[in-house]
Amino acid sequence: MSNLETVAQVGENEALKRTIARLNVSEFALVGPGDDSAVITAPDGRFTVTTDTLIEGQDFRLDWSSAYDLGWKAVASNIADVAAMGAVPTALVVALAVPGSTLVSWLEHFADGLKAACVSLAPGCGVVGGDLASSDRVMVSVTAHGSLEGREPVLRSGAQVGDVIAVAGTLGRAAAGLALLESGNQDAISAYDDLVNVQRRPKPPIQAGVAAASAGATSMLDLSDGLARDAARIAKASKVTFEIDPKHLQGFEAVVEEAARAIDSNPGEWVIGGGEDHSLLATFPHDAVLPRSFKPIGVVLPQGPSPVMLGAQPLPERGWDSSRAANYLA
Amino acid sequence: MSNLETVAQVGENEALKRTIARLNVSEFALVGPGDDSAVITAPDGRFTVTTDTLIEGQDFRLDWSSAYDLGWKAVASNIADVAAMGAVPTALVVALAVPGSTLVSWLEHFADGLKAACVSLAPGCGVVGGDLASSDRVMVSVTAHGSLEGREPVLRSGAQVGDVIAVAGTLGRAAAGLALLESGNQDAISAYDDLVNVQRRPKPPIQAGVAAASAGATSMLDLSDGLARDAARIAKASKVTFEIDPKHLQGFEAVVEEAARAIDSNPGEWVIGGGEDHSLLATFPHDAVLPRSFKPIGVVLPQGPSPVMLGAQPLPERGWDSSRAANYLA
Repeated sequence: MSNLETVAQVGENEALKRTIARLNVSEFALVGPGDDSAVITAPDGRFTVTTDTLIEGQDFRLDWSSAYDLGWKAVASNIADVAAMGAVPTALVVALAVPGSTLVSWLEHFADGLKAACVSLAPGCGVVGGDLASSDRVMVSVTAHGSLEGREPVLRSGAQVGDVIAVAGTLGRAAAGLALLESGNQDAISAYDDLVNVQRRPKPPIQAGVAAASAGATSMLDLSDGLARDAARIAKASKVTFEIDPKHLQGFEAVVEEAARAIDSNPGEWVIGGGEDHSLLATFPHDAVLPRSFKPIGVVLPQGPSPVMLGAQPLPERGWDSSRAANYLA
Repeated sequence: MSNLETVAQVGENEALKRTIARLNVSEFALVGPGDDSAVITAPDGRFTVTTDTLIEGQDFRLDWSSAYDLGWKAVASNIADVAAMGAVPTALVVALAVPGSTLVSWLEHFADGLKAACVSLAPGCGVVGGDLASSDRVMVSVTAHGSLEGREPVLRSGAQVGDVIAVAGTLGRAAAGLALLESGNQDAISAYDDLVNVQRRPKPPIQAGVAAASAGATSMLDLSDGLARDAARIAKASKVTFEIDPKHLQGFEAVVEEAARAIDSNPGEWVIGGGEDHSLLATFPHDAVLPRSFKPIGVVLPQGPSPVMLGAQPLPERGWDSSRAANYLA
């Protein structure tokens, strides 16, 4: 069969079949893809579920992200929401919509990206069902499931006064990568391709989610919209104020400083306001032993007028709301 | 707050919050919407999961379906895939994409449709998470979960030679409703609004799924693409031939005959080829006592050259593949 066949030519059912054939099946699947529903084990009698959508032009651009990148990112961004509960990712379902002119080989590379992200970030997890539809733009909705393995879920609302605030994963690198792509500066894009790659294929610290839960984390969330905005979310849900120590952000800034200079940007903005790193923000009792993957960045204070303070200053909620801002296409 | 506010004006987060506020929460939810993931009970240590997408212009038209209709249909079509496993629908997540110009009140009516379908078709089931994004066209991806309550899942692959083939629910009514809408014949649309309403707000026989499993159904699937096509799927998966007795389809034809005459259509085509009734097609051992909701329509034969026979004639696989056919917009 030709490499130039399109989805419209082979039909959705056949294209979906070929795509699914390339995937790894979840080790947790009792019944995998192909029936009306899949059947997944939930050993402790509960499962976690979360869903998120990526839309072409808004969340990604096809000239910046390959099909493989997109598959990877769709998995990574969703299983970060599983990890943020303290759960182990077990099974995904993927609803994909593409133009009829899309090559079947593009779908196959997308499937390869889905699989690679599962294998690399959450071994044992796999795609157990999918849906393929046609639309003008590419859209991917992933629903991700997890197992709490008998632990209590770590919610956003549990942060306690006196807790240590800590981050696992990168801060500002995905925003740096986006800014580099937006700059169109090919030299800078090549020089800092490690940052561009965090934007294209984020590597959230999935195992850190379970580690945090086991270490007694009192609250946790996935940093998808940036530290300022997401810290405000968890602080509000917990009815406390987060005080972030700017000194503890210097290490994160140092990593992106050089790239910022190359394209005249502000590395601090990336670290504080930039989304899509899909790192984990958590709070721990002050006497807890933090898992090695977590770096302390502040302390939890009684609720004040501002949900988040950066040192002595209130931190405005930056970050994006994708319906209002066209950050990605700015 | 004004009724004319748009999603772009209030922002996605706020619009999503208002939409979710109108929903019933699943009785199976240990943690409902608002955190990184929801947490759902899975009493027998397993859950079923299925996903499906409806896209404007392809699966529905906004001049034919209200926001309420669309919410209803998104739930109904997905929980039919839960019922087809012999499971009880427990929890849904909904990924919705709409243009920024969409009124928040439209979203609220959509939520009302989601809720009404849950309450009416699968009491106890509810929406436990959602995602709102912006796109040129309206798109809804629903992922539906179910509980098998200790029963074995009823697969497509279990039909045995000698089994009775039976249907629960309507056949051809949704196709009749679609043809009526397509005809533009307002008199006929009004006269047969019961059929148009099956197209807009299908009522799959959800409880019949569990009843079938309890009665020993050997195979089952949701009739989403029409009897001919879906019977071929289950026959192929089971490596048998389905022989459907045309006499047993007469009752289904009779229901849509008058509407067919009004717009010069073929009622037999609707019954055999028409999709979207979301009825259940199942097979039972010949000595099983069929649940009252199931009507026998044929018997399972050893695998022959054609997966489905209508009496003595091979039945071609009709039905639609949405990427090839533009049936809905024909």
